[in-house]
Amino acid sequence: MRRLDASDPGFAAAFDALVNDRRESASDVSADVAAIVARVKAEGDPALADYTARFDRFDLDASGWSISKADCAAAYAALAPELRGALDLAAERIRAYHAAQRPEDRDYRDAAGARLGARWRAVDAAGVYVPGGRAAYPSSVLMNILPAKVAGVERIVMVTPTPDGTVNPVVMAAAHIGGVDEIWRVGGAQAIAALAYGTDRIAPVDVVTGPGNAWVAEAKRQLYGVVGIDMVAGPSEIVVVADAKNEPHVIAADLLSQAEHDPTSQSILFTDDGDFADAVAAAVAHVIPTLGTAPTMQASWAEYGAVIVVPNLADAIPLCDRLAPEHLQLAVDAAEADALFGQVRHAGSVFLGRQTPEAIGDYVAGPNHVLPTGRRARFSSGLSVTDFMKRTSFLALDADALAAIGPAAVALATAEGLPAHALSVQNRLKPNSP
Amino acid sequence: MRRLDASDPGFAAAFDALVNDRRESASDVSADVAAIVARVKAEGDPALADYTARFDRFDLDASGWSISKADCAAAYAALAPELRGALDLAAERIRAYHAAQRPEDRDYRDAAGARLGARWRAVDAAGVYVPGGRAAYPSSVLMNILPAKVAGVERIVMVTPTPDGTVNPVVMAAAHIGGVDEIWRVGGAQAIAALAYGTDRIAPVDVVTGPGNAWVAEAKRQLYGVVGIDMVAGPSEIVVVADAKNEPHVIAADLLSQAEHDPTSQSILFTDDGDFADAVAAAVAHVIPTLGTAPTMQASWAEYGAVIVVPNLADAIPLCDRLAPEHLQLAVDAAEADALFGQVRHAGSVFLGRQTPEAIGDYVAGPNHVLPTGRRARFSSGLSVTDFMKRTSFLALDADALAAIGPAAVALATAEGLPAHALSVQNRLKPNSP
Repeated sequence: MRRLDASDPGFAAAFDALVNDRRESASDVSADVAAIVARVKAEGDPALADYTARFDRFDLDASGWSISKADCAAAYAALAPELRGALDLAAERIRAYHAAQRPEDRDYRDAAGARLGARWRAVDAAGVYVPGGRAAYPSSVLMNILPAKVAGVERIVMVTPTPDGTVNPVVMAAAHIGGVDEIWRVGGAQAIAALAYGTDRIAPVDVVTGPGNAWVAEAKRQLYGVVGIDMVAGPSEIVVVADAKNEPHVIAADLLSQAEHDPTSQSILFTDDGDFADAVAAAVAHVIPTLGTAPTMQASWAEYGAVIVVPNLADAIPLCDRLAPEHLQLAVDAAEADALFGQVRHAGSVFLGRQTPEAIGDYVAGPNHVLPTGRRARFSSGLSVTDFMKRTSFLALDADALAAIGPAAVALATAEGLPAHALSVQNRLKPNSP
Repeated sequence: MRRLDASDPGFAAAFDALVNDRRESASDVSADVAAIVARVKAEGDPALADYTARFDRFDLDASGWSISKADCAAAYAALAPELRGALDLAAERIRAYHAAQRPEDRDYRDAAGARLGARWRAVDAAGVYVPGGRAAYPSSVLMNILPAKVAGVERIVMVTPTPDGTVNPVVMAAAHIGGVDEIWRVGGAQAIAALAYGTDRIAPVDVVTGPGNAWVAEAKRQLYGVVGIDMVAGPSEIVVVADAKNEPHVIAADLLSQAEHDPTSQSILFTDDGDFADAVAAAVAHVIPTLGTAPTMQASWAEYGAVIVVPNLADAIPLCDRLAPEHLQLAVDAAEADALFGQVRHAGSVFLGRQTPEAIGDYVAGPNHVLPTGRRARFSSGLSVTDFMKRTSFLALDADALAAIGPAAVALATAEGLPAHALSVQNRLKPNSP
């Protein structure tokens, strides 16, 4: 863990180093992924079966390619009531938040008499990647599927590896709640390639979203353009801005809630009180060994954790903006949280006040938990309904509207050396000429 | 040019072949681009100067790195009045259409007492690539810069190669109208790398848009994630659906207005009248030699042009959807155009009725002419104001709202094996515990 003080002479350089930390895997899997993608494109299902046997030790032909909707419904019915209720509440709140994201069509006539507009439609089919093993999170299933469902996508396909045949019943229950249409027991780069190009069994989709390991992320990057994808995601991160009126152990747990995701996750505290900073650091050290995710938290906190003392909390905001964090928690009184938030330029999602731990946003708040990482909140946004839709602009002119704006198009086309463009307009400006 | 008839027995296979035409350059420049990007990242300005000397035969240090805003203003003032007026009209209409795209913030309280919302902000800086030479289109300058300006981007940077020192005064005039803040005389993959990573002279930007050759497109793809980018664009394309009430030479010019862009552009006619199909094909052959872009049109039309006869025009729409064309022109009576448009699922931009040639949309209609190509309208949209903005979601709970939804978060975190997530919520559910 780094402890920085904004009043130290070396602070600017130390903070620069923090901002430029490269936490993402440097392992170059691009050649491996390119080979897998090319083989799935060429061979289809037999390639999927071969990779799945090799990587997941699972025989698709012998044991089944897919998980049925009935099995998912049964997994949902078999959940403990408290957990089922929690998933239902999460789904209801995620649906409600995302429903309001549906964009409105436009269709209007302007002063020149031109009819103009934009029309939104869902994509035909969406594919959602769900990791197997440790990172199989039912909450992520809901966060990826429900925006597609709200968008109106008619075919939602889930792909997930089932190593050694293992399936996660809570993930299946979440798929049931989300209304997945197909679940295929394939993972890795080969699953992304199958979604993009299609195989005999798996029809292609238009958009692929969902978290995955380095192979999955690289496959999405390579297939970007063949299909639409969500932003390539890196390790999770949180910045907490807190004053000394918080209890140190409360803020410590907030920091650790990101640290437990992955050894490359990052948790950073900004505070205006050096003693509080030290108390939080002590609380972190105290809490880590009490929880089952201690090794991951310890690795993340030791390598990437930071506690930063600033003269005033307002001084933290420009520094936060340089980090453009995925999650920003403003653990101060409500009015001050609002004031600080007003100054924030770059953050994926912001949690205001002392009673709003970031973990609420991972599950039941409603906004999407798929958020830009690695400073990408400077230019990108969390997953939304519009990621599963596309906009078609349209134009209709009558003869008068064309007469009003057509000559300018002819002038510009001529200036650009595009005579057929000019002619296609001119032909209509003189409708009686041959 | 292919002539297909939907009633022929071999039609399905022939149309499949048309849909799967690979018109994009297969040349693999990825290794070259990776080397250029790495060198610009490592060396900065000297690498830019070296590549510019080599590729553009232009000495940046001796002749100047940038074009001044005063030079752009002078270029604007020196334009012929008709052309200046045309650019002004285009800019005014593009601004007006895009202003209505600005998304609204949300801030509301739900039934559980949670305050929720989303806030949009412009990115800090945008970079726009403008090709040199043949493809230097002032209309593209407006189409890329004005959405960024409408979004509220404070710093807009243009990069453009000036081979042998050549600058295009109409491009400079468009930069003046758009309100560009900086223009750097660099192009190619090296310019994209400079925008993404920054150099001593050129501060980095957050989003890079604009058309370019294969090197530029590959550099954008490689740097996606370091910066935001617009969709990778392929060759232009148009589908025209027309009945026999159109004059053949009018529709011929519409088809040729795409064919003249590039030898790999594609123009396709659907009609319900075989004689009209033949008349349009004859008109195309007649018009081509009369225009200065004849060689390009001839190559495009011969290799990729198609005329397709369908029993009824409504039969064309599902076929169009498989092509998901960049431009779709419905050259029929207004009511029928509306009815056909109602059936369209996938198209970048649609032009309704007999008086709406696609070329109007390239210049002065208002909607953006940067549109998805190569069947990408299935999942992506034209350039918009939101490509230069990002959304921050937010949440604020009080103790009651946390009590209402917090236990579900604890249940889900526990089910996912994330105890620190659960603890960060539990600590607040029992505010008096240590």
